[in-house]
Amino acid sequence: MNVEIINTGTELLLGRVLNTHQQWLCTELARLGHRVAKQVAIPDDAASIQEAVAEALTRADLVITTGGLGPTSDDITRELIAELLGVPLKTDPSVMAHLERFFAARNRPVPDNALKEALVPEGAIVLQNANGTAPGLVLFTAKRSPGNGKACLVMLPGPPRELRPMFTQQVLPLLEKEFGKEPALNWIFKTTGIGEAFVEQKLTMALKELVQKGLEIGYCAAVGQVEVRLSVTGKALEPMLHEAANIVTSELGSFIFSTDDRSLEEVVVTRLIEQKRTLALAESCTGGMVASRVTDVPGASAVFLAGLVTYSNEAKEQLLGVRRETLDQHGAVSEPTAREMAAGARERNGTDYAIAITGIAGPGGGTPEKPVGTVYIALATPNKVIVEKNFNPYDRATFKYVTSQQALDLLRRNF
Amino acid sequence: MNVEIINTGTELLLGRVLNTHQQWLCTELARLGHRVAKQVAIPDDAASIQEAVAEALTRADLVITTGGLGPTSDDITRELIAELLGVPLKTDPSVMAHLERFFAARNRPVPDNALKEALVPEGAIVLQNANGTAPGLVLFTAKRSPGNGKACLVMLPGPPRELRPMFTQQVLPLLEKEFGKEPALNWIFKTTGIGEAFVEQKLTMALKELVQKGLEIGYCAAVGQVEVRLSVTGKALEPMLHEAANIVTSELGSFIFSTDDRSLEEVVVTRLIEQKRTLALAESCTGGMVASRVTDVPGASAVFLAGLVTYSNEAKEQLLGVRRETLDQHGAVSEPTAREMAAGARERNGTDYAIAITGIAGPGGGTPEKPVGTVYIALATPNKVIVEKNFNPYDRATFKYVTSQQALDLLRRNF
Repeated sequence: MNVEIINTGTELLLGRVLNTHQQWLCTELARLGHRVAKQVAIPDDAASIQEAVAEALTRADLVITTGGLGPTSDDITRELIAELLGVPLKTDPSVMAHLERFFAARNRPVPDNALKEALVPEGAIVLQNANGTAPGLVLFTAKRSPGNGKACLVMLPGPPRELRPMFTQQVLPLLEKEFGKEPALNWIFKTTGIGEAFVEQKLTMALKELVQKGLEIGYCAAVGQVEVRLSVTGKALEPMLHEAANIVTSELGSFIFSTDDRSLEEVVVTRLIEQKRTLALAESCTGGMVASRVTDVPGASAVFLAGLVTYSNEAKEQLLGVRRETLDQHGAVSEPTAREMAAGARERNGTDYAIAITGIAGPGGGTPEKPVGTVYIALATPNKVIVEKNFNPYDRATFKYVTSQQALDLLRRNF
Repeated sequence: MNVEIINTGTELLLGRVLNTHQQWLCTELARLGHRVAKQVAIPDDAASIQEAVAEALTRADLVITTGGLGPTSDDITRELIAELLGVPLKTDPSVMAHLERFFAARNRPVPDNALKEALVPEGAIVLQNANGTAPGLVLFTAKRSPGNGKACLVMLPGPPRELRPMFTQQVLPLLEKEFGKEPALNWIFKTTGIGEAFVEQKLTMALKELVQKGLEIGYCAAVGQVEVRLSVTGKALEPMLHEAANIVTSELGSFIFSTDDRSLEEVVVTRLIEQKRTLALAESCTGGMVASRVTDVPGASAVFLAGLVTYSNEAKEQLLGVRRETLDQHGAVSEPTAREMAAGARERNGTDYAIAITGIAGPGGGTPEKPVGTVYIALATPNKVIVEKNFNPYDRATFKYVTSQQALDLLRRNF
């Protein structure tokens, strides 16, 4: 099955908006086993939209468009697709009723420019929009290529809050009914603390034979993380997938933090919850990023008691009990300061664990002895305090993320 | 000038990686006045890559590819493009020397699989890679369409840390020399605290005449933020752009927080730095996100003295001095608690301002009186404490971001 995605929106091509629809839709479609063959982003102009849809319909069994269904003058996808397919548009009473309810709840008449949202191509399935006004639309149409066959065209509104529930609740069931479901067999290993080249070097030889028999390996390096994806097609190869997974597990060992697609913060917080252990954080150069990542996990409030962002020396003294002498003798970015920060955060908040981070994020603040990128990460446990020195000479945002990853991983490894 | 971007990588189509290259490249190209006409993402397979490049070369004056230049077996872009254009590959001594230096610094011989990174299509300009091994490549080639002309093909490595400096430092100057520079005339207003529909309603009538004369308006709603983009083409229309900007400024007033593309945190931190005022933060439900956003701004350490993430009631009492009676009588999520958190954070850290946030991020923890999404935001200034109650009934991540936006905006408005 051939799937293509067309993202419309001039703002995408101007770089004003990050296209998150592509990744999200690809992930959702993978749940049914569909792999997207091509994604295209084009501006809101008539020729680009009609050309992209016509072209996709020569190849794809399923074409998904995003954007251009709203009330404003640059929302033209619905009209252009109807014209391209030669299907008339008619006002749909169910959408009209939705618009009337929507605006009545806001004590306003339906604005004139919203009326076009009720226009539906003849024969289209209407997808109600629980979080906005413009409905989604599904049309079955002939493919535009010799040999033909039928293609399914799904038009979705642009705002993620409208698109996402509509797709999950209405489109996925419809696609499953129409095209079936055969999730690909794959296994994803998330690792941290090891580089991509080194991961590949370890696995290439070890998996060589299985690759010759049809195993697919993918590597993906992100900031502070390398993913290994193993996949096979067809139930018959499933035992081989398990064999390969065992090899990866033994080769990469404790560098692997997740095999179920959880993030590092989810792994750490879940383990704290399961073992009823509590955590405090004392962050300097990461400025609250570790706390924010920890609290992204639902249920974190049960185990994460307090986080302290201590940028100033005064805050390190007052909130964490770091000694003035330590700061004077060794500086704020030092092994002894990190150690006292972690111990202080743990004691003062009465937690089982505390992580402390102090370093130089840059761009300013570096010295020849302690260049930008230098960071000390300390973990206080019930028995000891461990301090790690790392060097992350990256831009500010990357520095913060890599360091937060190392801090969470220090806890994971010493649980 | 017609520009197209081709992002290669199976991981993009599997949804494993968010495509940030598109937005970043579009923004960079806009600095020279180039607008991208089309962006395509395709998997790492030979047919897809050659087809996409061949197709783009029928239309575009500039084609940029990302990914597929590395050492691994799925890195095949360089070879496929050379084949497509009928250009032989030769080992480049400068790249070979770079590889030798790169691995020597790591006390390793050049791995066999890295040797192919030194292969360069005949006639290509080599872009040295300061942060990795694979060089970028620039080729000038004939367009694949009647009428012809010349097209420029730029191949960039996939990792953002390698791609970004290479593009900014080496590709942009080359493009400016080749194609010149004529930045579009535009003006971007960033607003918060007002919905997209309301923004458009205010501006549509007010700018109607100017739109008829050639003004282009774009709206873009993101989480907690609506952007208005005014643009005109050609120097002659510049006075009209100023006229339009004045109208937008008077219509939207203090909802506008930035006209120079700065984020809300940059606006707030910069103002604190300029006025030598200091800030403390006390966050419950946003879990450090406000602190993390504030510390994303270089120089924040001069004004942001301490951030406290007080998830537990104990932490609210001990770290902020919130009274036990207040917590017992009104609960942690209440106007009086928010007020005491802000006042306590300000006093204990000796800052000019303090922001406190307490609310229910969900998914658990809601009650009929205080449903998920309820949040109190307090600002303590030298003269008073202001408390705002908001209702942000969104998913956890959106809740955190919208609330952090409201908190920063409360400070901006009461500076």
